[in-house]
Amino acid sequence: MVEVCERSSGLAALVTRGELSTPALTIDVGAVERNLERMAAYCREHRLGLRPHTKTHKTPEVARMQLERGACGLTVAKVGEAEVMAAATKAEILVAYPIFGGEKLRRLATLAKTRTLLIALDNEATTLEVSRAASAQQSTVGVLVEFDVGLGRCGLESGSACVELATKIQQMPGLKFRGLMLYSGNIWGSEAERQRISAQVSEQVGRVVQDFAQARMPVEIVSGGSTPGAFLSHQIGGLTEVRPGTYVYNDMNTYYQGVCGLEDCAARVVVTVVSTAVPGRAIIDAGSKTLSSDLLSSGPREGYGYVVDAPDAKLIKLNEEHGYLDISKSNHRFHVGEILTVIPNHVCTCVNMHDEVFALRNDQAMATWRVAARGKIR
Amino acid sequence: MVEVCERSSGLAALVTRGELSTPALTIDVGAVERNLERMAAYCREHRLGLRPHTKTHKTPEVARMQLERGACGLTVAKVGEAEVMAAATKAEILVAYPIFGGEKLRRLATLAKTRTLLIALDNEATTLEVSRAASAQQSTVGVLVEFDVGLGRCGLESGSACVELATKIQQMPGLKFRGLMLYSGNIWGSEAERQRISAQVSEQVGRVVQDFAQARMPVEIVSGGSTPGAFLSHQIGGLTEVRPGTYVYNDMNTYYQGVCGLEDCAARVVVTVVSTAVPGRAIIDAGSKTLSSDLLSSGPREGYGYVVDAPDAKLIKLNEEHGYLDISKSNHRFHVGEILTVIPNHVCTCVNMHDEVFALRNDQAMATWRVAARGKIR
Repeated sequence: MVEVCERSSGLAALVTRGELSTPALTIDVGAVERNLERMAAYCREHRLGLRPHTKTHKTPEVARMQLERGACGLTVAKVGEAEVMAAATKAEILVAYPIFGGEKLRRLATLAKTRTLLIALDNEATTLEVSRAASAQQSTVGVLVEFDVGLGRCGLESGSACVELATKIQQMPGLKFRGLMLYSGNIWGSEAERQRISAQVSEQVGRVVQDFAQARMPVEIVSGGSTPGAFLSHQIGGLTEVRPGTYVYNDMNTYYQGVCGLEDCAARVVVTVVSTAVPGRAIIDAGSKTLSSDLLSSGPREGYGYVVDAPDAKLIKLNEEHGYLDISKSNHRFHVGEILTVIPNHVCTCVNMHDEVFALRNDQAMATWRVAARGKIR
Repeated sequence: MVEVCERSSGLAALVTRGELSTPALTIDVGAVERNLERMAAYCREHRLGLRPHTKTHKTPEVARMQLERGACGLTVAKVGEAEVMAAATKAEILVAYPIFGGEKLRRLATLAKTRTLLIALDNEATTLEVSRAASAQQSTVGVLVEFDVGLGRCGLESGSACVELATKIQQMPGLKFRGLMLYSGNIWGSEAERQRISAQVSEQVGRVVQDFAQARMPVEIVSGGSTPGAFLSHQIGGLTEVRPGTYVYNDMNTYYQGVCGLEDCAARVVVTVVSTAVPGRAIIDAGSKTLSSDLLSSGPREGYGYVVDAPDAKLIKLNEEHGYLDISKSNHRFHVGEILTVIPNHVCTCVNMHDEVFALRNDQAMATWRVAARGKIR
């Protein structure tokens, strides 16, 4: 942390959380360390690789903390994110997204000249494009074939379709077939629900892996996992690694999923009450351009964040720069100028609103970290 | 436009819309010009000042287009936005937000040394803070007192409360009372509904203005308006200016409000189909980090954007980087690599996701414009 501070401190002097100019997204470094250790320990115990998805933090300092704790690589969704993480680390990077388009694939293939890169694909058209780009750059891009385990987003539907695509990949220049990818974002809900879906996913993975065994095609990597189902990954036979993202910071979604406590929610937005003119209401200086408009996808499914200082005040509505607190049932007396702290519903989209975050230890800001991969949409 | 191009072109060669690396937010400059002309003509006709809210575009080039067409000033929500717009224009700037906090108000007061600045307030605590900051910088900040016309966000509830606060403002150093502000974001819904609420707002404005007349306090500015109600502003007696934002680009919300046609939606996201592996589905490379998660607040209230090329395909769900198109009822044949164009639900939050936009004329990219005030949350 001291090193991180020296590398990236933009703070003139130590300030406490309550002294930050608001709205400010703060990161409790102690909580991050606990979250990282917990996942790393789980993966060590079950001999699973850990390739964290950096979409949550988009921050080189945090990626390095993950790698220092034994992550086997990093995951990104976009080429621009891969470029940021490649510049900041020596990690093998998985682009867990079927990138299509000449400009982006040229950059991907260029990056692959000096860095081991993987991309996940589910179709021949994209495969041909990646092969063409890699050939032009005389580089090699590793490929994972994606199969769908029930989310209905990307991924082939059958093991035989995966084998067929993998066979084509093996014959294309510039590509190296390295394994399979699944995204089990459908492992969601109550503990029992997650267990049930996890068992289904395990069956599907088993079938696909078997199809590859029958085709005598070695599968080096089977990459799965997301935060809500991460700690069930050892039950999914055949997985070699997991790619959770949210676990680093957690949020109200993971809290309501029961996979973390409030104290594990490391990312919190410090806000100021700016108006109490309307009865029953307090307005805070954080709206959808600070917190994101993402609704809760678990738990009570209402509200736009949790007010730590007054949980009985409900963040019922967001405009772009205004958060509407319903304080009609709150025992807290709100006043203009008061500093509050809000835990966001969905930390990934919240972080994406911020150019920088403030790393705190014991409620003191130790460093500003640039969210360097924010806005890298291509 | 040529001048704008020369100032800010980052494009090596002219490219057409379909050749842009995706996802890319494009701005049809011809549509912007029509939107600006229409609002400017309305304001000229009714002798209303036009102080566009720059939160929609956050882009100096567009602010200058507004000023060149007769805008009397600019509106922002944050001090950081004011700094960007002050650096790019000579406009008088209204910070339509009750900024609270020493660091931000010091910057505001500093800016007021070289620029006529206004701030809208609804409480004494903030007023004292602004006065203190302005006094310390030996600058003067103009103040509008905000009153609530039914939205229930910020603003005092009665004319007498406004007169009371204005009286205090007149006595405080560093401040200059200049008038009143209201935000009629509640003028919303069908034409008839908008007419009805507009009539109510007119009554409220009338009462407050009368209270000031009785107190013999001159009110130089009465600032109102938002895009959905903008063209009803002449019916609101006493208004001296309006602050619409969205009208510059429009979006599916303003379309469903009936205040623009689809051809007036100037901001469109060019995307690529990246997967069709799951039956009945096409996945595009634009999710909530490109379009924003904002739901429709008018019209059918479902879906995350309008697919211009295939309106019968429904954008039913967004993950961060994935848009889920339900193509089960579409006549269009989708294929991986295909370029589509999406009109966002809410253009203000969509623009806020982008570091740059691509200005098009006749579907050719003429310039890249930096969204320079994006991320200026403080």
